[in-house]
Formats: sequence, structure tokens, C-alpha cells
Amino acid sequence: MPIMTAEQIDALMREVFPAMPEDFYRIEAVADHYVRVRMPYREDYLRPGGTLSGPSLMTLTDTVMYYAVLAMIGPQPLAVTTNLNINFMRRPEPADVIAECRLLKLGARLAVGEVSMYSEGKQDMVAHATCTYSIPPPDKR
Amino acid sequence: MPIMTAEQIDALMREVFPAMPEDFYRIEAVADHYVRVRMPYREDYLRPGGTLSGPSLMTLTDTVMYYAVLAMIGPQPLAVTTNLNINFMRRPEPADVIAECRLLKLGARLAVGEVSMYSEGKQDMVAHATCTYSIPPPDKR
Amino acid sequence: MPIMTAEQIDALMREVFPAMPEDFYRIEAVADHYVRVRMPYREDYLRPGGTLSGPSLMTLTDTVMYYAVLAMIGPQPLAVTTNLNINFMRRPEPADVIAECRLLKLGARLAVGEVSMYSEGKQDMVAHATCTYSIPPPDKR
Amino acid sequence: MPIMTAEQIDALMREVFPAMPEDFYRIEAVADHYVRVRMPYREDYLRPGGTLSGPSLMTLTDTVMYYAVLAMIGPQPLAVTTNLNINFMRRPEPADVIAECRLLKLGARLAVGEVSMYSEGKQDMVAHATCTYSIPPPDKR
Repeated sequence: MPIMTAEQIDALMREVFPAMPEDFYRIEAVADHYVRVRMPYREDYLRPGGTLSGPSLMTLTDTVMYYAVLAMIGPQPLAVTTNLNINFMRRPEPADVIAECRLLKLGARLAVGEVSMYSEGKQDMVAHATCTYSIPPPDKR
Repeated sequence: MPIMTAEQIDALMREVFPAMPEDFYRIEAVADHYVRVRMPYREDYLRPGGTLSGPSLMTLTDTVMYYAVLAMIGPQPLAVTTNLNINFMRRPEPADVIAECRLLKLGARLAVGEVSMYSEGKQDMVAHATCTYSIPPPDKR
Repeated sequence: MPIMTAEQIDALMREVFPAMPEDFYRIEAVADHYVRVRMPYREDYLRPGGTLSGPSLMTLTDTVMYYAVLAMIGPQPLAVTTNLNINFMRRPEPADVIAECRLLKLGARLAVGEVSMYSEGKQDMVAHATCTYSIPPPDKR
Repeated sequence: MPIMTAEQIDALMREVFPAMPEDFYRIEAVADHYVRVRMPYREDYLRPGGTLSGPSLMTLTDTVMYYAVLAMIGPQPLAVTTNLNINFMRRPEPADVIAECRLLKLGARLAVGEVSMYSEGKQDMVAHATCTYSIPPPDKR
């Protein structure tokens, strides 16, 4: 079960990323091997065609996976991404995006998760990603 | 051979992404199926551990691939990423990053490329990515 | 909803892959955007360490995705893989493997799916993959 | 520099995979962080459309990466794939395939490489892959 709450993760992020905007991602749920985050729509996420940019969804993917790992292992901000693979399936409209991360493996050294992203209120997935994090060994934390 | 110059790509980007900072990426070379970009170091790319964040390199990957496609096919800003896979191999120090994109396939509908990233002045790759773009058909441009 | 049954997919496979062994994969379920396949254990899947080889699971991934696409679009054997990404999470013991494919997108030209693999009777996923297929346009079938 | 020769790798493979056919892959070159392998054409690699199957190229990818790792670290057959990502770019004709693996990172615990595949005598790449191997720690070899 998770050992950090949404509030604790959020406070840790604001401490280690002091430049993070106030109205950034909102953690909506934390459960066993699971985190759900809302990315409130911002005009600077737009790209030509009036859809949200790829990098805005990649950043969301990487962040929700980071939250899901921290929720389970506690405040280890030195966990780092080693691989991320993302498929963009539908053009996300200018709206909030909901990202759900489910951890598929949480080992001593590696965590693997998948992230599903939806435009608010829509059923079809806009993007899907898998992500691997390397967890620092106890003596390097 | 490329049909857009570095200056033309840069001007197109500033037109379609008006919020892009003045001191953003610099296109250092454009050649056949190849673009090289410099990402000048900015403090807001940092993450815990004093290295550059994953999303800063993902955004660089996606952008240099976009530039490489535009260089070859001309100003088609509606080209979109369909898949991106990135491996992070070494922790990038706080310094400029050089990204080289080589197109492996440039079809009528899909382009596939690989992107190699280096910290300035270093030989070891910090990250490597492959990326697929969907090119809009003529009637949807 | 699917327009091919397990029996029809199996018969098509035996027609287009005449060398397929009699005791090869078994299609256990076909449903909306979903196929489940059993890979009966064979000694020649083993690799050093006494676990199933990576290529045996990659072949399973690619095949169950193929079945899921055919189930939905009908007998179009010229559909081809364009991207496959697989994460190996636990060493699969020498036993049957169950693979579940869920289609995340089924467009006119591209299908994207995810495949989860389990050792028979175990709950933890041994491998997870995402896969993209290109669907031939009507005039190239 | 490599510490195993092509002959030594081949002999190790025949020892740990006794069922490997006599006329299987041929190691054509072993150099620093680099291995080149030829996959002689076999009719059972064919798929509908008269091209080589995806799984035949995935197996080649995984194997040439395995050889490249073994060449550098010595006979450690328990090294295992953790991630493989492959893009299929052109339909490979019924002919030998040449696969070149270049290691991008060779750490104590993880190796990352890229594999480029060509039909014999052709210049355009038919497929490109990246692959990560986990290297067993000294006490688990």
C-alpha cells in the first residue's frame, strides 16, 4: 500500500522543484500501485492544429510515474527514468488531461509502469505510455 | 536534400509557437536527412540530483525530430508524433545538450528517426531516442 | 464487436502459415477489442537460467496482436507490425503463458494495442508490450 | 575491447542452446562495442506478402544484442533482456538480413544498444531497434 499521501507528494515536489507553477498538476487519487493526476489545461500546451503538444503529455507521463513510485517507496527524489515509450493515438483537444499510472512491477532496483491518458470527460485514450524508473540503492539516497 | 534552411525552420517555429523563448534551441546544422540542435542550458531544466530532467530531453528529442522532418518536406506544421521511445543512459550534467537527429525513413505518410544526445564537449551519449511522425496527407495540410 | 471467431482466425493462420505446428498457440477468448491466447509450454522456448526466452514472448506478443486486429477487421493477413515495445519484468518459469491483448485504437490505417503476459496460474505479469500494426488500404488487400 | 571472439561466442551459444540449427546466424564481425551478424534466409521466416516475419527480425535483434554484450563482458549467459523496442520501416524481401549492433552504454548492471538491419546488398534499413540487457551481479553468475 502507498506510504505517501497526495498532499505529501505534492509538498515534496514543491520542495524539490521550487519553480513549479502553483496551478500545475493535481493529484486526484493515490492507491495501491496507482496514482491519478489531472493536468489542468494551459494555453501554452497548444501546438499547431489546436491540440496539446507531445512534450506536454510526455512530461505528464514522466511525472505521474514519478509520483506513483514515490507513493510506494517514500520520499526518494533521486529515482530517475531509464526508459519511456509513448504512443499518441488521438489528437487531444484543448482541455484538462487525466493521467492514470499503474505500476506493473516495483522491484528493489527497477519500477515499471503504464500510463493511460484521457481528455476530461472522454472515453477514448489519447495517449498510452510505459515507463521504467531506476530506484537508487540505499547507500546512494 | 533539405528544402528548408535553419533560418527558415526557426522562423516557422517562432510563427507557430509564438510563446517560444528567444534563447531557446539553436539549429546548428541541417543536411540530408539530418539536423543538429543545441539546447542551451537553463536552470529550470534541473531536477533533484543536479542533472537535467527527463522531460527537458524528451522535448528536445521531439523538437529535433520535428525540425528534421520539416527540413525535408517543407513547412507542414501539422506533422505529429505517433511514437517516441527514449533511453536515458547517463545523468546529464548542467550544461548545453547537443541533439543529432538522423531520419531512417521518410515515407509519404510516416517518418522514422533516431536522436542521439550529448552533453557539450563530452563523447558519451546521455540519451538516445527513436521517434515516428505522421505526415498529413496533401488534402489535410 | 469482433467479426471473426477463434476458429476462423485459427483456420486462417493455418492457411497462411502452413508450417505452424499443430500444438501451437490456442485462442482462448475473442471479444470486443480483445483476444486471449495460451502459449503451451515447449522445451525449445527455454533459455539459459531455465526461463522462457525473450523471442518466444516477442513472437507471442506479435501474434496475439495480429489475432486481435484480424478479429476486428476480418481476414486481412497483410496487416503488418510497424512498432513493438516490450518490457520483461519477471523471469517466466517453464509453464504455459497466457497473453491478453487489448486494442487501444483501431483506426482505418493504424491499430495500437497492449499485451499483458502471465505464467499460468500466477498473478504477476511476466512481460508487457505495446504494438502498432499498419492496416493495408482497401486497394492493397 | 571485446574479450570473446566470434568463434567463442558461437561455441558458447551451441553449448547453451543445443537445439540451435547448424545453419543459423553467422557472426561476421566482432569489434569494440560492436557485433555484426548475418541471418541466412530460410523459407520459414516468410509471412503473408512474401516478406520476412516480424518475429524473425525480433529474434535476430535480441540475439545480436546478446552477442554484443557477451563479446564485451565474457561468457555470462544469464544476461537477460529487460526492454526491446523495434521499428519496422521497409518490408524485408526474402534474402539474408545483416544486423549490426552497437552498444551505446555498457554499465556494471545495464547495457543499452541499437541494432540496424538491412537486406543483403541493399542500403535502406529494413528495421531498427534499441535493446536493454540486465547484466547479472557477480554473485549471481
